[in-house]
Amino acid sequence: MSTSKDWAGDAKNASTTGEFVRDTRYIDDRILASVEKPEQQEDGRTFWPVVPGKYRLMAARACPWAHRSIITRRLKGLEDVISLGLAGPTHDKRSWVFDLDPGEVDPVLGIHRLQEAYFERFPDYPRGITVPAIVDIESKSVVTNDFPSLVPDLNDQWSEYEREGAPDLYPESLREEIDELTSYIFKEVNNGVYRCGFASTQDAYDQAYERLWDALDYLEERLSTRRYLVGEHITLADIYLYPTLVRFDAVYHGHFKCNRNKISEMPALWGYLRDLFQTPGFGDTTDFKEIKEHYYIVHTDVNPTQVVPQGPDLSGLVSEHGREQLGGSPFAPGATAPGPVPEGERVRNMLPEQQAFFEG
Amino acid sequence: MSTSKDWAGDAKNASTTGEFVRDTRYIDDRILASVEKPEQQEDGRTFWPVVPGKYRLMAARACPWAHRSIITRRLKGLEDVISLGLAGPTHDKRSWVFDLDPGEVDPVLGIHRLQEAYFERFPDYPRGITVPAIVDIESKSVVTNDFPSLVPDLNDQWSEYEREGAPDLYPESLREEIDELTSYIFKEVNNGVYRCGFASTQDAYDQAYERLWDALDYLEERLSTRRYLVGEHITLADIYLYPTLVRFDAVYHGHFKCNRNKISEMPALWGYLRDLFQTPGFGDTTDFKEIKEHYYIVHTDVNPTQVVPQGPDLSGLVSEHGREQLGGSPFAPGATAPGPVPEGERVRNMLPEQQAFFEG
Repeated sequence: MSTSKDWAGDAKNASTTGEFVRDTRYIDDRILASVEKPEQQEDGRTFWPVVPGKYRLMAARACPWAHRSIITRRLKGLEDVISLGLAGPTHDKRSWVFDLDPGEVDPVLGIHRLQEAYFERFPDYPRGITVPAIVDIESKSVVTNDFPSLVPDLNDQWSEYEREGAPDLYPESLREEIDELTSYIFKEVNNGVYRCGFASTQDAYDQAYERLWDALDYLEERLSTRRYLVGEHITLADIYLYPTLVRFDAVYHGHFKCNRNKISEMPALWGYLRDLFQTPGFGDTTDFKEIKEHYYIVHTDVNPTQVVPQGPDLSGLVSEHGREQLGGSPFAPGATAPGPVPEGERVRNMLPEQQAFFEG
Repeated sequence: MSTSKDWAGDAKNASTTGEFVRDTRYIDDRILASVEKPEQQEDGRTFWPVVPGKYRLMAARACPWAHRSIITRRLKGLEDVISLGLAGPTHDKRSWVFDLDPGEVDPVLGIHRLQEAYFERFPDYPRGITVPAIVDIESKSVVTNDFPSLVPDLNDQWSEYEREGAPDLYPESLREEIDELTSYIFKEVNNGVYRCGFASTQDAYDQAYERLWDALDYLEERLSTRRYLVGEHITLADIYLYPTLVRFDAVYHGHFKCNRNKISEMPALWGYLRDLFQTPGFGDTTDFKEIKEHYYIVHTDVNPTQVVPQGPDLSGLVSEHGREQLGGSPFAPGATAPGPVPEGERVRNMLPEQQAFFEG
């Protein structure tokens, strides 16, 4: 009774027991400020140079793993340095598809399916066609889809080209704590909701449910006395938790049966989520229409009718959160929030309240 | 794109457009105090006499349509007059089944499937094997499954045998208002949730969702200034709304995509639901385990994995509701609440909070 997920987006289930186990093998090349040209390593990886305009970040608004890379790129102000390609929400069995673009091809790479950039790199590429992926524009081939290094490297390696006032989202002094927490969040929350939703036996689901709520109760308590997860400001830990939290009431609560309660019923997590949502980089990169369409239309083994729910009412996300009283501030002194989203990158489908909040 | 529902429980979809249309043709005989033996009418119906011990009410804890008959029988104190047979929650395509009873047969009728009592009446019975149904014990054949008359007749026709202090749930002076409201509740709420959940096209769902929330918003407003739906006390109108409301957050919100918000997020409806739940006859006849199993296991076209969610947290149902301040009282002067549930009829699966509330 195992659910073999498709190759695109939601990684293949590597388990045969009913429990969902994510395939975590990726193309793990890195882009590093310390090399000047592509350098093959002894372990088979290639290190690529930091060059403005050389790479394109391929993502999708729907995908939580891609969302963290979009937020990080925006907070760092790398929009003019690394361009952004966006696949539509409803990929097919083979690949994420650029069906939102004119002619259904990515305007820079000229490809219809993200799969083409994977096959350009490895003609027999056998694993998931996942976002986020960074593609070398000239060769149209994937450099990395290794999200554990991809996002931190966006913070660390592009300092020369990032915007003035860009925050350090992964400060040296906090790395140990951030790493510990993001590892926990990955296993128990980011992946925990999938473990509930893709469980194909009652027993696997029941165990997944307990694990998930243990973790959310822990985070609720942690966030009841502190504004952000680690230190006094936004870090990668927050960027890793946000994409799951903001999708929770809209998708995971019903579609993945993570339904002990909604996030809006947990005071600290709900305040924290609203606080982040209202911070430039978070709520202004969140597209609930694409998020809901992705899950409800792609997962036909969970939702055979492919009907997309109209609920929930998400207007509360822009309500006052009162989290300032816990101390801390979004960014450290000297760092600033990013400016308005560049014209060509604005979220296609904003809720009325979301639009009023961000675009006035 | 129509969803043809199975014959048992959830009536067949009579539509071919994607909208769910309930088959409302029933065996519409009646049991009346005015006749002394079965009397065939010109329209083909038979009127049956009121005789204690002659009939058995066949129901299921899971089914909202059966639940109203169970509540009414208990409020009227007819336990010793009309016995109760309970099918399990997870009927198959053919019939509700007595799989909770020893040997998987109903201990009084000696049948395994409710279908047998329908076929005893009409060997070629072509429609849904539904609960509630009242069966003549001697002939083991269905007398009526016509819920529009079945429940009011439990209130009206058995006065000679009902308990002392039994309330009049359908007072003459309020019938017009009750009828108007129950007709509205049937179309817009009881059936409205199914119209959302069984919609097989996005368009049919979207329309069903709007209709449902228009109705729930109307009821929220109506109940913000009055304790019960009609008059000052509990009537059939409340008994008809309760089974849908109490299933809402547990099932309809997620499984049927009725997810603008939970009932627990609507102050008047949530107070009203708690008030009823805490009244003997309502919460002590509600079995959430069987309710959830029914919907999530039977509807494989909505939930192919048949995994039953552990949520939501329903412990709030026994919290203080404060509805007394609106005036009114559960029962009119002279009428009383029923005593404890008879030993053999206690709900099999009580939530811990529910058990503590009702059984101390």
